Amino acid sequence: MFLKNTWYVAAKSEDIADKPLGRRICDEPMVFYRDGSGKVAALEDFCPHRGAPLSLGFVKDGKLVCGYHGLEMGCDGKTVAMPGQRVRGFPAIRSYPVAERYGFVWVWPGDAEKAHEDSIPQLEFFDNPAWSYGGGLYHVKANYQLMIDNLMDLTHETYVHANSIGQPEIDEVPCKTTAEGDRVVTSRFMHNIKAPPFWKMAMRANGLPDDADVDRWQICRFSPPSHVMIDVGVALAGRGGFDAPDQDKVYSVVVDFITPETETSMWYFWGMARKFKPQDAALTDSIREGQGKIFSEDLDMLERQQKNLSAHPTRELLKLNIDAGGVQSRRVIERLLAQEAGVGA
Amino acid sequence: MFLKNTWYVAAKSEDIADKPLGRRICDEPMVFYRDGSGKVAALEDFCPHRGAPLSLGFVKDGKLVCGYHGLEMGCDGKTVAMPGQRVRGFPAIRSYPVAERYGFVWVWPGDAEKAHEDSIPQLEFFDNPAWSYGGGLYHVKANYQLMIDNLMDLTHETYVHANSIGQPEIDEVPCKTTAEGDRVVTSRFMHNIKAPPFWKMAMRANGLPDDADVDRWQICRFSPPSHVMIDVGVALAGRGGFDAPDQDKVYSVVVDFITPETETSMWYFWGMARKFKPQDAALTDSIREGQGKIFSEDLDMLERQQKNLSAHPTRELLKLNIDAGGVQSRRVIERLLAQEAGVGA
Amino acid sequence: MFLKNTWYVAAKSEDIADKPLGRRICDEPMVFYRDGSGKVAALEDFCPHRGAPLSLGFVKDGKLVCGYHGLEMGCDGKTVAMPGQRVRGFPAIRSYPVAERYGFVWVWPGDAEKAHEDSIPQLEFFDNPAWSYGGGLYHVKANYQLMIDNLMDLTHETYVHANSIGQPEIDEVPCKTTAEGDRVVTSRFMHNIKAPPFWKMAMRANGLPDDADVDRWQICRFSPPSHVMIDVGVALAGRGGFDAPDQDKVYSVVVDFITPETETSMWYFWGMARKFKPQDAALTDSIREGQGKIFSEDLDMLERQQKNLSAHPTRELLKLNIDAGGVQSRRVIERLLAQEAGVGA
Repeated sequence: MFLKNTWYVAAKSEDIADKPLGRRICDEPMVFYRDGSGKVAALEDFCPHRGAPLSLGFVKDGKLVCGYHGLEMGCDGKTVAMPGQRVRGFPAIRSYPVAERYGFVWVWPGDAEKAHEDSIPQLEFFDNPAWSYGGGLYHVKANYQLMIDNLMDLTHETYVHANSIGQPEIDEVPCKTTAEGDRVVTSRFMHNIKAPPFWKMAMRANGLPDDADVDRWQICRFSPPSHVMIDVGVALAGRGGFDAPDQDKVYSVVVDFITPETETSMWYFWGMARKFKPQDAALTDSIREGQGKIFSEDLDMLERQQKNLSAHPTRELLKLNIDAGGVQSRRVIERLLAQEAGVGA
Repeated sequence: MFLKNTWYVAAKSEDIADKPLGRRICDEPMVFYRDGSGKVAALEDFCPHRGAPLSLGFVKDGKLVCGYHGLEMGCDGKTVAMPGQRVRGFPAIRSYPVAERYGFVWVWPGDAEKAHEDSIPQLEFFDNPAWSYGGGLYHVKANYQLMIDNLMDLTHETYVHANSIGQPEIDEVPCKTTAEGDRVVTSRFMHNIKAPPFWKMAMRANGLPDDADVDRWQICRFSPPSHVMIDVGVALAGRGGFDAPDQDKVYSVVVDFITPETETSMWYFWGMARKFKPQDAALTDSIREGQGKIFSEDLDMLERQQKNLSAHPTRELLKLNIDAGGVQSRRVIERLLAQEAGVGA
Repeated sequence: MFLKNTWYVAAKSEDIADKPLGRRICDEPMVFYRDGSGKVAALEDFCPHRGAPLSLGFVKDGKLVCGYHGLEMGCDGKTVAMPGQRVRGFPAIRSYPVAERYGFVWVWPGDAEKAHEDSIPQLEFFDNPAWSYGGGLYHVKANYQLMIDNLMDLTHETYVHANSIGQPEIDEVPCKTTAEGDRVVTSRFMHNIKAPPFWKMAMRANGLPDDADVDRWQICRFSPPSHVMIDVGVALAGRGGFDAPDQDKVYSVVVDFITPETETSMWYFWGMARKFKPQDAALTDSIREGQGKIFSEDLDMLERQQKNLSAHPTRELLKLNIDAGGVQSRRVIERLLAQEAGVGA
């Protein structure tokens, strides 16, 4: 069960160039390509002729051509042409609303009439010279909600990421979870601590003394269907923390777009938008590499957790205060799923 | 559902030498070996003692010996001997009618009493000094009928084999399909065209100018259960095409024996019999290598098509004129399956 | 269906050192680790917090710490602590009785109240300076009873192990099977034969002429749930065979602890305890290496046999005199399974 009337990140813009890209999203096989004007189109990855995957074909003059017998598909799912055939009566395949924003391709797997680009989240840190972004993509064999749980409870950093961003103080300082409408926020503020290795590196990069006492914050923001933006950073102790002036802190947003592939697998688009030294491309690369290593530490845990849960589907799990962010996010998803079912979406 | 009362190619003769060969055919595990006289035998690959696969054993004095506890099996499926045992009461395992012809081993998975070697197809190009044959075997994870479809509609050459045997004229010239009894023929004749790379090579090999205009033909002949013989070639333009004298053309037959392994996999014996320079062994090798590369281009397409179809088992596919060969061949198979069911085969 | 109220070998003692070990036994995921005193504990491999496998965690001060969010688990399955949490109400996970003996960790998957270490088999050759032991572990994708069958009918040695311990005389000399209570013994005594390669090596190692005529014995002893100890050896012919004085024979025990993983896979702990040259560590290594090679020859046969049997679950197999050891062992297991079911275990 997935929310369908919503936007998911399907791909990085750069991954859809001259060749079509096949990708399963919400258990639907899709093919993405660029039409003649460079606009991205998303279709069912199923040729109406003989069922071949269109993603094995190619793009010619902005039309997607099936690589098996040359059927030419339009971006509306209607066959445009086929050598030697009259195609008017060919059954259409499904086309999906698709948009390109912030360097990502977004797809709407549900009812096309309900799709409006306005509902793509507004994110201040993209397309903004004060910020810089770098990120990557992982395929993870676990239900996408396990990743939301993971990101809405950062106490796991102390254990899974002990050598980079984890530190005991995350465990010791309680978090606070609030929900407002469809949004859930879990925040934690730590004062007068030492920065962990990742943030020491960031402090040095930004010209701050890495052995200074700092205030650290983590503000995890869930919005449906499965986006988690996390304000993270450290400021020199006593300068206002999250609200400290820019020169006294290093501040970034962990950007997580989580897209279900199947019930037990996901596409995980991870990245970091930072508000310090935005022009420093080498720093962007270095952070991306570091974050990629750190985030890969979660994968085995989530995949093995999924196996345990698949083997015990009815077993109750604990819902502690630290789990409140994930639990509330699940409630939002459940409520929206019920809404979609109710209106026959 | 497979036709059972029919001959399938099980192996190349040379692949059954001193060791037994295990191979699943029509979803039945079989073991092939040569008895004392060199005659091939085919049995169920299941030792009646403890269920070990007999194909893990060895052949001794023409008897198949189980590699686990030494049971000696006769080619009729009856146990011949076992150390320290009286074997008369041992249950027989199934033996399959088997024949060797044209360098292949043929097996009859159905009712043994109905098996007659006369019904193995008569093929003029084998055992004939005017012809030469070379071929190979691919294991393909797709239903065998997808390969029949593939071979009965050669418009796919323009797309899948664009750099070797494909050319736009295949799409442009309509094909004609006829059915007579259990046989289906789809033919296409192209006039005054340039030869594609594979045929240019063949023309050069046969001393013809490879830049000459040619007439090209493709005559795909299906016969049950799943044999597809395709007359292919080019002749200097205006010399009679398919009927041109031998010195003005290069002519061969694409030989396809397609043997179901399971419902979603097959053994695909492909090859080419040619009627030019039959003594030229180096040319045989070169053609085999080229054909092997070309035919391997189909495999990914068919396997991915199978996945799409498995995910949408009830979805209707198009049946265009170019598909008539495959569609009619499927009808023949369906009719024969109904016949087999009706007579309790 | 597995016997649960019994001891299985779960691991070699040395394999549970400073890190937890996850291993599925009788289809239950377990985690093994050492507590603060070095005592081994066995728990369900499922964190009560969010279902992560505890085996991905670590051991700290003798407590098993979940690697996801730091829950500290006690060896009784009760949560000891968790950062920032009161854990008294946390649901317990299952703990399994566990014991360490003979260099192995033994686990009792059944009713803990019935577990007594007294029922771990008494084995004279462990912890005994007159003997020396070496062995290894194989993971085999076959039901554990197929391995019992294998070991209780050594006629397979003539075929599977033709170049090491097999010889035709094993086939020729009948075996004798007796059952007494839950124990089954199949024995074979061969007189005035030549030793096969493995035993020639052992004779040389023990200062005996390897070309001498020998008497050879094989006494296979099954005890539930799935232990098979096999007295094996050769003595100079006419010196009393199994009862010959130590200087006239080479004598060892093949030690087989067979632990079900799933219905179609097992952990196979194999080894050899020998009563000659026990101090010779190089000989121990050499025998372990040789035995490892020999026993690996069985794996493909058993895994392929399992596939055949899975495909034909209802097909009757033969029960010959040579199979009596396996057949009687299966009856013991069935009787004990019925007992366990009857008492609601």
